Formats: sequence, C-alpha cells, structure tokens
Amino acid sequence: MDIATSPLARPFPAMPAIAGATPRIARAGYKDWGRCDLTYVALDEGTAVAGVFTRNICCSSEVELGRDNIGQGLARALVVNAGNSNAFTGYRGREAVEQIMDQVAGHLGCPREQVFVSSTGVIGVPLPKDKAKAGVEAALQARPCSWEDATHTIGTTDTFAKGATVQAMVGDTLVTLNAIIKGSGMIAPDMATMLGYIFTDAAVEPAFLQQILSAAADTSFNCITVDSDTSTSDTILAFATGKAGNAPLASFDDAGADAFAAALHDICLQLAHLVVRDGEGAQKFIAIAVTGAVSDASARKVGLAIANSPLVKTAIAGQDANWGRVVMAVGKAGEPADRDRLSIGFGGIWAAREGLPLADYDETPVAEHLKGQDISIEVDLGLGQGSATVWTCDLTHGYIDINADYRS
Amino acid sequence: MDIATSPLARPFPAMPAIAGATPRIARAGYKDWGRCDLTYVALDEGTAVAGVFTRNICCSSEVELGRDNIGQGLARALVVNAGNSNAFTGYRGREAVEQIMDQVAGHLGCPREQVFVSSTGVIGVPLPKDKAKAGVEAALQARPCSWEDATHTIGTTDTFAKGATVQAMVGDTLVTLNAIIKGSGMIAPDMATMLGYIFTDAAVEPAFLQQILSAAADTSFNCITVDSDTSTSDTILAFATGKAGNAPLASFDDAGADAFAAALHDICLQLAHLVVRDGEGAQKFIAIAVTGAVSDASARKVGLAIANSPLVKTAIAGQDANWGRVVMAVGKAGEPADRDRLSIGFGGIWAAREGLPLADYDETPVAEHLKGQDISIEVDLGLGQGSATVWTCDLTHGYIDINADYRS
Repeated sequence: MDIATSPLARPFPAMPAIAGATPRIARAGYKDWGRCDLTYVALDEGTAVAGVFTRNICCSSEVELGRDNIGQGLARALVVNAGNSNAFTGYRGREAVEQIMDQVAGHLGCPREQVFVSSTGVIGVPLPKDKAKAGVEAALQARPCSWEDATHTIGTTDTFAKGATVQAMVGDTLVTLNAIIKGSGMIAPDMATMLGYIFTDAAVEPAFLQQILSAAADTSFNCITVDSDTSTSDTILAFATGKAGNAPLASFDDAGADAFAAALHDICLQLAHLVVRDGEGAQKFIAIAVTGAVSDASARKVGLAIANSPLVKTAIAGQDANWGRVVMAVGKAGEPADRDRLSIGFGGIWAAREGLPLADYDETPVAEHLKGQDISIEVDLGLGQGSATVWTCDLTHGYIDINADYRS
Repeated sequence: MDIATSPLARPFPAMPAIAGATPRIARAGYKDWGRCDLTYVALDEGTAVAGVFTRNICCSSEVELGRDNIGQGLARALVVNAGNSNAFTGYRGREAVEQIMDQVAGHLGCPREQVFVSSTGVIGVPLPKDKAKAGVEAALQARPCSWEDATHTIGTTDTFAKGATVQAMVGDTLVTLNAIIKGSGMIAPDMATMLGYIFTDAAVEPAFLQQILSAAADTSFNCITVDSDTSTSDTILAFATGKAGNAPLASFDDAGADAFAAALHDICLQLAHLVVRDGEGAQKFIAIAVTGAVSDASARKVGLAIANSPLVKTAIAGQDANWGRVVMAVGKAGEPADRDRLSIGFGGIWAAREGLPLADYDETPVAEHLKGQDISIEVDLGLGQGSATVWTCDLTHGYIDINADYRS
C-alpha cells in the first residue's frame, strides 16, 4: 500500500555535524525492498548514554538488553534494524541481537554493553542472523552518510523523515543537538514503533543525562498519543560525545546545565510533535491544554483520556465543536473532576463554563478554528493548580485504511 | 444521516406480558422528529427495584437522582426521554427531572423517590419542562403498548430494536423476565448512551435483587466495549413486580434463587451482546477469552485492553490474524504477563504458544474463521487460574462515518 505524505509533515532541517558521532547505512535486506534498512552510528570513546524505554511488558530483546546496559552509562555504537522488529521471538531473537553487539564490539574493541541495538518492523520472526551479520559488516565499511539518510533508513511506515536540531550555550561553549525519530502510530508493533535518537557534542555525565532525559520525556513523549496503543519496542536514546569541550555537566549546579536541559527538552518536544504529525491518517494536529487539576499528573491523565477518546478524535476529524464528548472523556478519566466547575473551549474560546453551556456562545469563530490544521482544546477543571498539555491527532478514514485494509 | 441496520442485528423476540408492568409511549417532541420519544412504564405497588449506573464522574442529574433513590428499593414508574440526555445542564436539568418525578408521583399517589427517570440524546440542553410535562401527561393517558414499541421509543441511533426474554422456575412457579435496551456505541453522550431495563414478575427482595444484578452486570455489561468511551448516563434498572406469586427471594438459601440469578445473568448477557451487535460501524462480533491470568479481575483487564485496542479492532476488520497486535495489547494492559508464556489463538487455533509463533502454524483455517461474522480470540497467559471473556466489535470505516462525518 502506498501511503501519501502526511498533510501535517514538516521539512527535514539542515543539520550540522556532531563531532564524535558518525552515521552510516547499509542494506541488510530484512525485507524484500530496494532500500537501506540498517543504520550504524559510530560514537567516539567517552560518549555518555541515557535512555527511556517502552513500559510494554511484552517488550523485545532489544529493549531488555538496552535497559540492562543503559546503567553503565557509556556507548560506542548504535545499530538500528528496519523491517523486522525481532519482537516475540524468544531466545533466537535475543541471540541475533547479541550477535550484532559482539560483531560491532569486536570491530571497535569495546565492551559489548556499549553497543545499543533497536529493531522495528514485523514481529514474531527472529531477526535473520546471516542478513544481520552481512548488513552490519557492510555498514561498518560504508562511507559516512547524512543524518537525513540515516533518518530515512530507520523509517518504516513513516510518510516523511523526522528530525530536529537545536543549539545551546553551555558556559562559553556552543553545543549542538541533532535528533532523528521514526514512528507514525502510537504505535503498532507491526511497523510503527517509535524509535528516537538524540546526538549532542556536549559533555554530560551519564547520570545527569539520564535525569534530564527522563524529565524531558515525561512532558514530551509521554504526553503524546496517536491511538492509545503502546509498542513493544519504543526506545529513546540520548548520546553525548563530549567533543564540544565544555566542562562536563553533572548537575543543575553547573553553569549551562539549565540551558542544556532546556535544549534537550525542546528537541524532545519537537520530535514528539513530529510523530503526532505523522500519525496514521492524521489530518489535524491537536493540542489539549488541561488546567485547574489537583496536580500536574492528574491533568496529564485527564488530557490523555481526552486525547485517546475515539469520540473526541472523530469529532475533531468532522470539524465538530462537540464539547459534550470532551466532558464525557473528562468524566471517564478516573481523576478528580466536578461537572459543575468544568469549562471547555476550542481555539481559546470557551463553549461551556462551570458546568453550563455559555448562553452567548458563538460557534462561528470556533467552527473557523476547527477548519484549520492546528487545533487546540482547553479544559479547565476548576479544582487546583495542576496543568498539562498533551498532543494527539484526529481519527480518520485514513487510520482505518492503513490498519484494516492493509495486511501486514 | 441514515444509518443502515447493523449486519449483526438480531430479530426482536416475541415477549409475554409481565403482570404488574405496563408500558406506554407518547410524543414529547424533544427533537423535531415524527416519532414517539417518551416511554412510561407503570409498575404495580410493591415492585422491587435495583440498578447499576455509569461510573463517569460527569454524570447526568437522572443518574444522580437514580443512585440516590435506588436504596429505598421500591419503584412505581419508569420514564425514559429520548432525544435529549439532559446531561451537563446544571440545576435547570435537575429541576426538569424532579418535575417529571413529581408529576408521575402525583398521578400515582406514591413517593417521588419511587419514580425513576432516564434521558438520552444531545447534551448541554436542559430538558424542556413544558415538553416533558405535556409528554408525560400524554403517556399517563395513553393505551398500553407492546414491549417492542417501548424499545423503539427509548432508542436513538440504534439501528435495530434490542430485547430479550427468558423464563425460569422459582420453586414451583414459572417466572418471566423481559428486557429492553438501547445503545450503539460504548458510548457517546450524544445519542448512544446505554439504557437497559429488566422487568420480571418474580417476587424478589430489593437487596437480593441488587446483589444479583450487580454480579450479573460485572460479567456482562462490564465486559463489553465498543470504543472504550463511557457515557455520562449509562443506566441498567431491574424491576420485580412480584405478581408471579413465588415466595419472595431474599438470598441464595431460598429455593429457586439460583435459577432466578442464572436467568437474570442470562438476560443481562443477551442485552450486552445486542449492544455490541449494534456497535457503531460493527461488521464483526468479537469474543475475547482470556485464561491463565493471576485472577479473574486481571483477566478482564487484559481482555478489555485487547478489546479497546484500535490496532486489534482494525486488524479484525481487515480479517488479518495479526497476533502481534494482541501481544502488544496484552503487554500494555498493566497486568501480570510473561512474554515467554503467552499463547494467542483465533477461532480456537493457536497461532503462537509460550512466546513463540508455532512452527507448523497453518493460517488457512484461521483466515477462513476471520471471514465470518463471529470471531473469537483466545489468550492464555500461562500464569494462573484467572479467566474472563469480554466482547467487542471491529473498528471500521462505518465508525468514522457515524462519528466524524455526522454533525450532531
């Protein structure tokens, strides 16, 4: 099935080089397709690593091994396989991942725990060891490629290449962050797992990198949803080569740590939004801002209940300011809410306040807002100071086309 | 929008009369439609009542008042308004419900707590008191109607009238249960709230009726889902007139209590299945049997995670034996599961056992099964003795048509 580029797509940005991080691509031939499907990023010695992984209990061996090895804090290489997720393949799948780790570690002369592997694609088929071996060998010998080429190579059902780049001053040193991501549903184990990688030349201690990545993920990747489903392989990794030469960041007491953490959060948010913009069948990008909750965590749960409601998502697809469906979703979230204090708005215009439809509510500007591509829903619970914003896309015929009419 | 009758529809059964319960219908004109939209069921003195209500926090005044009054255990009348749900209408909505309760109680000469009211339809518009008053007056004077006519009258977006009837021996006495229900999504606050009513001539003490209704709801209404959404008005009420003349059932120690509880469970299950069969856009009825869980409650949660997964539902719509999506849904349920003990089957044929795809898996009979209308998915977690079955329908273009392309 040929899937058209998302109408919400964004162009791939011009990306500077990241000293100490070198991408290469090759053809492993995991599927019968005429494209590169194996990405290898070599990382200079001393590169710090941090990661966040899917909470899905039925995760892949790649996720298990990545989770086991993230704690030692150092990385020398990343390998990403596209076309076969290697999930639900038992010990044979695990052996294939270990083979890749050993092969790359042997080449680089590093401990195998410093080689991180991700895979995305069909599940239930062990990653073929022979193809993986030849593909890795080809990638080790390949010429360096652009970050955009690497992004295309990690992609599967993605309709556009998703990347972001930001810079920040750490003390007197300019540091750069490049990031690439794939994923178009949230997320099928078939072909749409979310895999994101952030590369920076900043020097950051692994424990601090983990601290700020986890915090950034909490208000970015953990605040998006396409269809409420959770991949068995979702992975976000951050690599810091230290080549920029700043004094290594170890805590928020260090000069420039705030700026770097803000840049990391910014790039995570950009990546997260790009995934929503490539949501399966998405025609509209929806931001849901929840205020007045008893806590930020409660606000996020309410926001995700709205974002995951098929009735809200289809209403937006139909350009219908159906605040009743938003009320329903608030009520089913299982969080503190009071029908008679609840206010609902679209595009910054209240439709209902404190439990009652506004008497002078004029739907015209709201209808105009809903015709656009970027939609906002405002919910004030009227209870406390907790707030959160979550992002999703609408639910359209395109989603059904991709997921029902297409046989994997 | 004209919605075709569900391909999964079932004919309305022939229903005997229930002594002591008399339905009547009238036109209140809540919407501009040429049909009856107010249902009134008079109940003889001494009728016991029990009920279960939506857990949605933003529930309607009807639900609040019903929940307040169910404890006294007696009912003289039921009034159901169709076309206006009266939800999210504050004190004005509540006044309209109280007016109906007072009007009927005045006519019957009973306490107003014995009059139960439900409403379904658009939200945010207070039920118009004048139309309600005239409609109730007309219904009080109307000739008795059939249960099928009453079923049509409580319906909104339903594509067929849903009813069930069963009989049971309580000691030497034959008792009858008739039940009617409306609802086609699970469930929009717009027009698809689930409202179900069970009428029996058996004599049952209110507390025992509540006990067995709650238990029956747990493995019927609480085990179905169409789209994971929860109405602000869902209500199931059971009325026992006592006219059959059996010795009143007060506990499972009483002769015939088991038989009656089984009949009540049977009719609840029939109603629940009928709602799924009228699920918005449904083309297939899906039963998901989960075994080997650490508890029954855990099995139900896993089952509902599968049943609510858009990726599973679209796979079934596409007749795709995509067991990987089932694995994903198991993993995200948040319940104990072990990837390497998990078995998944379709139509009674295992596709994967103990974490691995079956080597000799023959997809042909599974593909044949998935072409049918009644689909089964089997999941064995391999951990314990807990089990549950849940029911849902597939997710199709029809769902999007109804919920996105239709402006309420």
